[in-house]
Amino acid sequence: MVKYPAMTDLFLGVDLGGTNVKIGVCTAEGEVRGSVSIPTEAARGPREVIDRMGAAAGKLMEKTGRARACGSGVPGPLDLERTTLFVAVNMPGWKDVPYPKLLGDRLGIPTFMENDANCAAWGEYICGAGKGTQSLVLYTLGTGVGGGIIINGDMWVGASGAAGELGHMMIETNGLKCGCGQLGCVEAYASASALARRWGQGSAKECFDAARKGDRDALAAVDWSADALSIGLANMIHVLHPEIIVLAGGMAAAGDMLFDRVRAGVRRRVFPVCLDKIRIEPSKIPGDDAGWLGAALWGARKTGAYAIREPTR
Amino acid sequence: MVKYPAMTDLFLGVDLGGTNVKIGVCTAEGEVRGSVSIPTEAARGPREVIDRMGAAAGKLMEKTGRARACGSGVPGPLDLERTTLFVAVNMPGWKDVPYPKLLGDRLGIPTFMENDANCAAWGEYICGAGKGTQSLVLYTLGTGVGGGIIINGDMWVGASGAAGELGHMMIETNGLKCGCGQLGCVEAYASASALARRWGQGSAKECFDAARKGDRDALAAVDWSADALSIGLANMIHVLHPEIIVLAGGMAAAGDMLFDRVRAGVRRRVFPVCLDKIRIEPSKIPGDDAGWLGAALWGARKTGAYAIREPTR
Repeated sequence: MVKYPAMTDLFLGVDLGGTNVKIGVCTAEGEVRGSVSIPTEAARGPREVIDRMGAAAGKLMEKTGRARACGSGVPGPLDLERTTLFVAVNMPGWKDVPYPKLLGDRLGIPTFMENDANCAAWGEYICGAGKGTQSLVLYTLGTGVGGGIIINGDMWVGASGAAGELGHMMIETNGLKCGCGQLGCVEAYASASALARRWGQGSAKECFDAARKGDRDALAAVDWSADALSIGLANMIHVLHPEIIVLAGGMAAAGDMLFDRVRAGVRRRVFPVCLDKIRIEPSKIPGDDAGWLGAALWGARKTGAYAIREPTR
Repeated sequence: MVKYPAMTDLFLGVDLGGTNVKIGVCTAEGEVRGSVSIPTEAARGPREVIDRMGAAAGKLMEKTGRARACGSGVPGPLDLERTTLFVAVNMPGWKDVPYPKLLGDRLGIPTFMENDANCAAWGEYICGAGKGTQSLVLYTLGTGVGGGIIINGDMWVGASGAAGELGHMMIETNGLKCGCGQLGCVEAYASASALARRWGQGSAKECFDAARKGDRDALAAVDWSADALSIGLANMIHVLHPEIIVLAGGMAAAGDMLFDRVRAGVRRRVFPVCLDKIRIEPSKIPGDDAGWLGAALWGARKTGAYAIREPTR
């Protein structure tokens, strides 16, 4: 799997979030050597934030050893070439930032930027739930629903660079209003916020807790959310049918209460020929590490650490 | 593109249909050298039909020159290894047929079987509307709605071998009943049969003709079908975003009346970042040739005629 197994090669990962920046160092196999978290304080602007990120990464690498390259996961739409962060969600004032150039100059190593859900998918593929597969689709089930796609052992971002917007598959022609402005998107039903809204009595986590104690309203809301998600998954299977579907993010933490329902809903809806080849699993990389680790491994990919597999047929 | 440009290399294509079998010979670039059509007479059973196919192919190759390999497109679900034709649509009695083995033995050349919509996608990719792209998704809009997917210059059939079932994306949770047994599939709205059913006064072609003359009911039916198809396309774009989407089959023959509506519907529904990278085009290979030609070119692919492109990133 790893092309040049120089076990000393280290990679830096940076998970840029609206509240915190998580930074870590790992090997190309995903072995963690150290990590740290700093507050983002996005309002201070890209240059100052990136300068503090660089300082924190420098300190970390004094302990772990210097990284060969850096990958950073970012929340927002990017250009196809991954040179410009157009907009960063929850980071007002960050517009059209040449982020990988700025961060790379500060760090002094090759630095690559990728959508955060795509990084999470890559991480699960290299050293998480999808290790050993050739194709994986990851859903991030949080405030919104995002996604990342791995096909034939490489990330797939499509012609626009924005493929994998799995939360914005429309499953109901005149359905609920989604944050994106359209009606009936998966995200309007299967995000943590959508579940909480439907339940109307607290957070998604509290809804799952209440459902586990037998609360009828909470159970109905969970059924409703899981059913919508299973339609989205079945639709995606009829398009792509990856070897494994990984669910990550806050909703996925609900465990069997969510997975049992989603798996049953998918099995009810897909073609019989698909049935014995469906794996729907929770993410394996702990939430605190998932962001930076996937990003670091993407940096490894971009600097040639892996032999990209030949197509199988 | 062509790896071994031995211009004398020829490939045989066989399009197995319920009514006719179309057989042709072409080069790896898709240059047609000759073709012939014979009635299937499926009821006589696989062995006799395959024997007649072999005889017709033999006669054809006496004129064109002998082919190096054969590809055959078949209508129905296959095993992942493409050794067994489980069921053939409109061909009663064809069950679990080891079709490529039987046909290959009769022809005396390496013979490969693939789903007919996948073959059509491969043909458009090599020498049709998608020539020069790296990714393509084809929809066949006929009695049903099928599909084929090309990613990174190779066919994608997924973990089950049945990826690309684009007609069975559910776009309406409690929508119209589809032939597959589910509710609200794209096929229940956007197939030629669905359009004819909705109009209620004749075939899909007659409906388009009437709409062109300004018939209000016919126009409403066309709008309805095109809108559903555009939802299916927008959903697929949010998953995969290929460089080009090719529409083929009876419905696609309606031209601008369909394409204008579908393009507008898709543009209304996809993320802004996708907008300037969307191409929705009619198939370029004439209907009579599309089946066997795509299959022949798939036979060429399976015998190493093309350099499969490296992933771009």
